[in-house]
Amino acid sequence: MSAALRTPPQLPPDTLRVIPLGGLGDVGRNMAALEVNGEILLIDCGVLFPEDDHPGVDLILPGFEAIADRLDDVVGLVLTHGHEDHIGAVPYLLRQRVDIPLIGSRLTLALLREKLKEHRLRDVQYRTVEDSQRIVVGGFDLEFVAVNHSIPDALAVFVRTAAGTVLHTGDFKMDQLPLDGRITDLRAFARMGEEGVDLFMTDSTNAEVPGFTTPERDIMPALERVFARSKQRLIVACFASHVHRVQQVLDAAVTHGRKVVYVGRSMVRNMKVASDLGYLKVPADTVIDLRDVDSYRPDQVVLISTGSQGEPLSALSRMANREHPVIDLQPGDTVVLASSLIPGNETSIYRVINGLAGLGATVVHKGNAMVHVSGHASAGELLYCYNIVRPRNVMPVHGEVRHLIANADLAVATGVPRERTVLAEDGTVVDLAQGRARIVGQVDTSYIFVDGSTVGDISETQLTDRKILGEEGFISVLAVVNTRSQRLISGPDIHARGFHEDDTVFDPVAAQITKALEEALGDGVVDASRLQQVIRRTLGRWVSNSYRRRPMIVPLVVTV
Amino acid sequence: MSAALRTPPQLPPDTLRVIPLGGLGDVGRNMAALEVNGEILLIDCGVLFPEDDHPGVDLILPGFEAIADRLDDVVGLVLTHGHEDHIGAVPYLLRQRVDIPLIGSRLTLALLREKLKEHRLRDVQYRTVEDSQRIVVGGFDLEFVAVNHSIPDALAVFVRTAAGTVLHTGDFKMDQLPLDGRITDLRAFARMGEEGVDLFMTDSTNAEVPGFTTPERDIMPALERVFARSKQRLIVACFASHVHRVQQVLDAAVTHGRKVVYVGRSMVRNMKVASDLGYLKVPADTVIDLRDVDSYRPDQVVLISTGSQGEPLSALSRMANREHPVIDLQPGDTVVLASSLIPGNETSIYRVINGLAGLGATVVHKGNAMVHVSGHASAGELLYCYNIVRPRNVMPVHGEVRHLIANADLAVATGVPRERTVLAEDGTVVDLAQGRARIVGQVDTSYIFVDGSTVGDISETQLTDRKILGEEGFISVLAVVNTRSQRLISGPDIHARGFHEDDTVFDPVAAQITKALEEALGDGVVDASRLQQVIRRTLGRWVSNSYRRRPMIVPLVVTV
Repeated sequence: MSAALRTPPQLPPDTLRVIPLGGLGDVGRNMAALEVNGEILLIDCGVLFPEDDHPGVDLILPGFEAIADRLDDVVGLVLTHGHEDHIGAVPYLLRQRVDIPLIGSRLTLALLREKLKEHRLRDVQYRTVEDSQRIVVGGFDLEFVAVNHSIPDALAVFVRTAAGTVLHTGDFKMDQLPLDGRITDLRAFARMGEEGVDLFMTDSTNAEVPGFTTPERDIMPALERVFARSKQRLIVACFASHVHRVQQVLDAAVTHGRKVVYVGRSMVRNMKVASDLGYLKVPADTVIDLRDVDSYRPDQVVLISTGSQGEPLSALSRMANREHPVIDLQPGDTVVLASSLIPGNETSIYRVINGLAGLGATVVHKGNAMVHVSGHASAGELLYCYNIVRPRNVMPVHGEVRHLIANADLAVATGVPRERTVLAEDGTVVDLAQGRARIVGQVDTSYIFVDGSTVGDISETQLTDRKILGEEGFISVLAVVNTRSQRLISGPDIHARGFHEDDTVFDPVAAQITKALEEALGDGVVDASRLQQVIRRTLGRWVSNSYRRRPMIVPLVVTV
Repeated sequence: MSAALRTPPQLPPDTLRVIPLGGLGDVGRNMAALEVNGEILLIDCGVLFPEDDHPGVDLILPGFEAIADRLDDVVGLVLTHGHEDHIGAVPYLLRQRVDIPLIGSRLTLALLREKLKEHRLRDVQYRTVEDSQRIVVGGFDLEFVAVNHSIPDALAVFVRTAAGTVLHTGDFKMDQLPLDGRITDLRAFARMGEEGVDLFMTDSTNAEVPGFTTPERDIMPALERVFARSKQRLIVACFASHVHRVQQVLDAAVTHGRKVVYVGRSMVRNMKVASDLGYLKVPADTVIDLRDVDSYRPDQVVLISTGSQGEPLSALSRMANREHPVIDLQPGDTVVLASSLIPGNETSIYRVINGLAGLGATVVHKGNAMVHVSGHASAGELLYCYNIVRPRNVMPVHGEVRHLIANADLAVATGVPRERTVLAEDGTVVDLAQGRARIVGQVDTSYIFVDGSTVGDISETQLTDRKILGEEGFISVLAVVNTRSQRLISGPDIHARGFHEDDTVFDPVAAQITKALEEALGDGVVDASRLQQVIRRTLGRWVSNSYRRRPMIVPLVVTV
């Protein structure tokens, strides 16, 4: 795979162009654009949560700048389900054109509506669709297919166009006995396969995992054991969108006579939406407010909380640090992390586990009990899909490079010719015509960073600066020179942050800088920026020799 | 557990004091001090590799400042084995007293000798000991016990003193069919148990892992399969100290007619030491130099490389980035990561795997094949140990809090009374007298940071500054004021790094700062530090309102 930009050719009539705008090479910021005869259909618009190589960044958006001048041609945005990595970037896209029709299931759009309210977006166009419903949007004839995932009401979408058909799975797995009975509709997949799927875009997240994803209901015995053994306070942390996981905890709570308290803003909000719409079945008098928790004994309540990824400001982290205003954990309390361990979050999660364990709490997590199962189809399930759909071309989506490659290998194992598996990355332009998909170009889908209230203001340059500052700190040098007398009249004043506690360590180099500046001034150099160069060079050499380090050097020369 | 400092009482005669100086609460910087009748024995002196919360730091040392004024009383330093987290901090300790007798096995001291040479330390005192050897060092009667670990020649140590006995396992596991036939000497453990073990200090790393650690030789089938299938270049990455792992690769190479090339400075150095001493058995004409690799076809060579943890400057990372000067990977090449996935390194390791996969290489790792086993005893093995030793008191060592707690629970499960399991952390002072171990105090064992060529110069304050700088950047404001005329004569000049590309975004606030400064000057404020406060407040408020961010603000006011 190569990311060199290569302008794609003009799109011929009756050819379908597919451009992944995110999610191929990362787990997150999922988005794809489909274009035919001048009209564009978008599928998903999610965020990527940044890791250490993007310090201070809040969110990373898909590369929708690539279609910035084409937004008027967009006929709709299909949201396959309500996870942040599929809907989180919608507010930022709508800032550019607010009336893009948003198409999705009832729960997906309800969760999105809450989000768009917080962003104060008005005049948004929603179009709710049902399982198996077929609608026409411009030149795209869409049929929605129920799929099973770690959030209810997820959909795959079958797209019929003048140039061929695409089946996009969204995120999915194939739990054959899901809690809500809503299975991935393989009969629909089979029917579409018989009709002909020209391009099959499939979730790659678990393509490296052999076998089959364990059914959600198989965590119930472990949860039951926890409830049966727990004699004191009990806290279960999981994702705020995992309605089925919450349902299992809620059911166990009812069985064991505990009230339920939702903790964390997104947990409270999502569970309200889910129970209002009937996705979460809540018996009367089960849920109480966190404010009222002290009216009950610790063993009469279970708290269902956010913070399962060790987020530093979450309720769970604050409990682990003894900083939570209401919940004060005691030895013998039990905390369950009923959640995955997302790569990159290990350090934060283990920090929380160690904090909780250090307070004497029993910590149950996927490392020592069956309290989590994945939301994505494993290799065995993907093989079923390929054999049922028998696609003409395959384009693995949603995953890092290793996942995409593993998924393509599964397609090949079921008989898809290697040359019919498209290993694309973000920005790869794929044209489908006469039943054949081909890579024809590459467009720019760079990360767009959200930082505080700014979008796109931060570039890789600032991030590189942050990285240097974060690892080495900086040293500032202030000098005031009189350009007429060619004399240094004040300074050098040297201060460091993130480098050394004691500014007197700079005394030896201050004399060197004075000497270097006076020599330069004596040579007739009176330009501030050239004098700053002198400081940078003198100090840089000294700090590298004396400390073997490379802090940022910030020289400030004032000429008077 | 609480880290509040509590001065321990004066040590009574014939009482044994144990202070863990590192390794309890972290995986790394393992070190313990044992004191009796005024003499101190040290066990291990390793480094901790820093994670994201210590940006820019190279190494973290044990808290040996706690015994800085007692170094003359140290009668010896026992090194249980040659891993960095057990020997890596020795050079920094020897800078404070070079002639502390270093006691260890042949391989351990040979590896340490190479390290101390690089640090240019002379007049070092080495004392090599054999399995089962008994030596007396001051008031400490030491008996060494062979243990099996992921490096050869590891030792446990049984310490007999006037105040009681301690059995310290070092790091170990209980592979019953190890490659070199050198098993953990449970007969010695049993004999010591019969004699009486007052305090059992045991490796906790895998105490949370149920069952038994898989034998090292069980990875041979997976390695064999890789060699049999590989038709092109083959690279195996593993730890540079894992002699047995390298031996297995080397044996497979001989079987399949491939020459062996060591890649990476520490791999070359350690394998030279190991084969010189006979720990690695190398048939003649097997190993070739990297310089000569081009004289062979790719399928005639296997490269054994460092970089299995995704270290950015390692040979493997450079291959993944196509930046290696000699090795240019081709589609169809195979790379094996025969190594663990150390928590905190996931992102780096997956980055390397994605890079290699993107180049078309087949990547084999512990996630998709049995190419790694742990070096530490799992819960099942620890139960054996407790039942064989039947210790009077137990103090879990080497692990995060959750590991220590899990290990204590295993001791309790075998019948050790809960009150006889000491849950200590770094700096906890434990006194053993009349066969009973008790926590009596807590001393300061703060992290000591190695950064560039400096040791201990960086404090938490600098790291906090680095964190702010790394996530938010900084804004500097320079103003020159005339204190006599009470006028601003130059500035404010506002510059930012890591904040925003374009300094003109500050134009609106520059006017506000000018106004605030002039008002302050008009009110008679001429003190530079008070004027700097004015700038900090004005700019801080503006940036928080306009950007919802909190960069470091660096005001510089020059008064002339």
